[in-house]
This record gives sequence, structure tokens and C-alpha cells, in this order.
Amino acid sequence: MKFKNRLFIISGPSGVGKTTISHLLLKSVPKLQKTISCTTRERRPGEVEGKDYYFISRKEFQSLIAKDAFLEWAKVLNDFYGTLKKEVITIMRSGKDALLCIDVQGAEQVKSKIPSACTIFILPPSYSELKNRMEKRNEKKEVISRRLKLAIREIKKVYNYDYYVINDELNKAVKLIKYIIYAQRAKVERKIVKEVLKDVLCEL
Amino acid sequence: MKFKNRLFIISGPSGVGKTTISHLLLKSVPKLQKTISCTTRERRPGEVEGKDYYFISRKEFQSLIAKDAFLEWAKVLNDFYGTLKKEVITIMRSGKDALLCIDVQGAEQVKSKIPSACTIFILPPSYSELKNRMEKRNEKKEVISRRLKLAIREIKKVYNYDYYVINDELNKAVKLIKYIIYAQRAKVERKIVKEVLKDVLCEL
Repeated sequence: MKFKNRLFIISGPSGVGKTTISHLLLKSVPKLQKTISCTTRERRPGEVEGKDYYFISRKEFQSLIAKDAFLEWAKVLNDFYGTLKKEVITIMRSGKDALLCIDVQGAEQVKSKIPSACTIFILPPSYSELKNRMEKRNEKKEVISRRLKLAIREIKKVYNYDYYVINDELNKAVKLIKYIIYAQRAKVERKIVKEVLKDVLCEL
Repeated sequence: MKFKNRLFIISGPSGVGKTTISHLLLKSVPKLQKTISCTTRERRPGEVEGKDYYFISRKEFQSLIAKDAFLEWAKVLNDFYGTLKKEVITIMRSGKDALLCIDVQGAEQVKSKIPSACTIFILPPSYSELKNRMEKRNEKKEVISRRLKLAIREIKKVYNYDYYVINDELNKAVKLIKYIIYAQRAKVERKIVKEVLKDVLCEL
């Protein structure tokens, strides 16, 4: 099946499982590639440079802002996060769909710049579950408390998104996002369907 | 997951596999029910009254038209096909999504009356494949020839639909439609998501 390149945004509050979901998603959906974000936050155990993030200094980050190199960037609590424009362009040029797994602020910026982007909001099954997940990260109590307050504000932004997925059972959530991506690829768009009809009716 | 009732329309040219697809679909998607159409055409071997169609006389059909009982109706070649309004209402009231498996003329009528209906167009993999399938039905050559001419005109209407699915491999086509239905159910709609948020944030 032919499809032009699309941009999928997965967002939601910190701790909701965005990163885990997107890793599993990449394994089950072909022609989909995740953009790697830049961040100034400290690397967590197990995270790999150039795979999970590009870990850069504050100075580097600010120089890239000055160069207008970011599609989106945001300061979340005390750390900077951002997606370089060239990340998305490189994926698009390779004929794949781009997957942005970003925070709520970043998602808003991208959607306002690229309204055709398909936005998916991940919801926790409950507030207490979100709290549990955050506490597992071994971060300071103060950081967790701030993240939770932010999460509540962010969850209320679900209304601005195209789709919502509750991360109750991980595999179920991944499946549903996979379905959303396949459905988007089956949307009738003049250019693509014209190509398909050429094939179907070629003998006439 | 909560969802309000939706209306899905599967359409496409005669012989493309709409009926087979919709039967398999009902087996794999819960909370989905197919409306049964009325028709004046002859019953084909294996078809069951009240399951495949309500087979009624021309006189009965015309009396129902006069009573404005149809959500849509159409004359395809020499036969009448139509969906009674009460069919859809009954399904909606039972808390399920309604699946309409109807011809292209009928689909147009429903979409114009219910713009929120999700429309899916089934395409044959090729013209020769469509011809093969029609010939298997053991109908008169003349009927087949007329159906094929109509099919070509109908296929060009794919541009008015929300989604297109190529019926190349039956199971793959059924799966893709299943994905589309699940994706539609995950769409953010204020009323539904408000209920979901109540659950998520109930502890606050």
C-alpha cells in the first residue's frame, strides 16, 4: 500500500509510559521511525546517547535555539527538551512516517506548526497509578511532587488531541496506537488514492 | 473503554467483497452490529432471510418509500435496496456501533444525512480480479457486463470517502477495517473524554 509520509505525535504527562510505548510501537509498525530529542537533563540508568536522547549541555541547547534549529523545544521543570527540524526531515526523506514522542508543551508547538500531524494523548489509568510509576524512578520527592502537579494540568489538555489512549495494559495501549497509525495510512487523500486507482484501473 | 455509538459505512462496487468482509468483521469487532437491508432482488443460493437481507416485494418496498421509512434506498440496475431507519435506531439504542454495508448510491445518501458517519470504500486489487469475482456468481453475461460498467463509475467516487481499503487479501482487508473502527473509537470527543477524565482524576 502506498502512503505519503505522516507525522505522529505521542504525548502525555511525565511517567505515563510514552517512552516504553514508543519503543514497542517501533517493533510492531513498519515504516515508522522515532525522532530522537535533545535534552539537557541528566542521563538515567540504562539510557543510551543517540538512542534515547542526544544529551547536550545547556550552552549547546541555547546555541541551537538561537540558530532556530528546533521544530519544538520546551523547558520542563529545570531541564530543556527539543526536537531538531533536521531529525524530522531526515526521516521524511527516507520515505518513513515520523514518530515524535514528546512532552505536552512540545506537542502543542508542533501541532500549531504542522496541523496535519496526528496527535495521540496517553492517559494513565488513574492518578494513583501515575504516582506509583513516578515513584519507581528514584527521583527526589520534591521532583516527583512537582511532576505530579504538572501532570494534572497536562492531562486536562487531552481535549486538544486527535486521539486518546489509556495506558492500562501496556500491550493493549501499543496495539491501539498501531491501529490508529494504520487507520491514518488508509485515509483517503487525493494524491495517494489517485496512484492506487491508476493501479486498479490500469487495464482500462 | 467508553464510546458513544457510531455509524460505519462499508461501500464499494458490486462484487468487491463487501458482504464477506462485513461478516468476518462482525466476528472480530465487539459492540458492532450490521444493519440488514431490504431488497427486491432474487435471493442467491445460501442467502438467509433476515440475516443477509429482508427479501421483500416491489410493492412492499414502494409502500415503505411512501412512508419515508428508509434511511437510504436505491435502485441498482433493476433491483431496489434500502436500509430502514428503525434498523439503525434499534442498534444505537442497544449501545452498539452500527455497520452499514451498502452500495455506493446508498452510502452517499447516508453520509449526506449523517455527516459524522465514518465511510470506508472497498477497492478491488484490479479490474480483472473484480471481473473474475463477478463471473463466479453465475449471473447472466449481460448483468455482469452492466455491473462492471457501473463498478468503474463507482470506483471513481472513492474520493468522497474517509478511508479506502484494498481487498487484495481478505483477512488483511478485514484487519485494516477493524483498525479503522478501533481508531475511530479512540478519537477525542469532549463528552466521552470528560467521562474518562472523571475516572482518571477521581481521587483529586
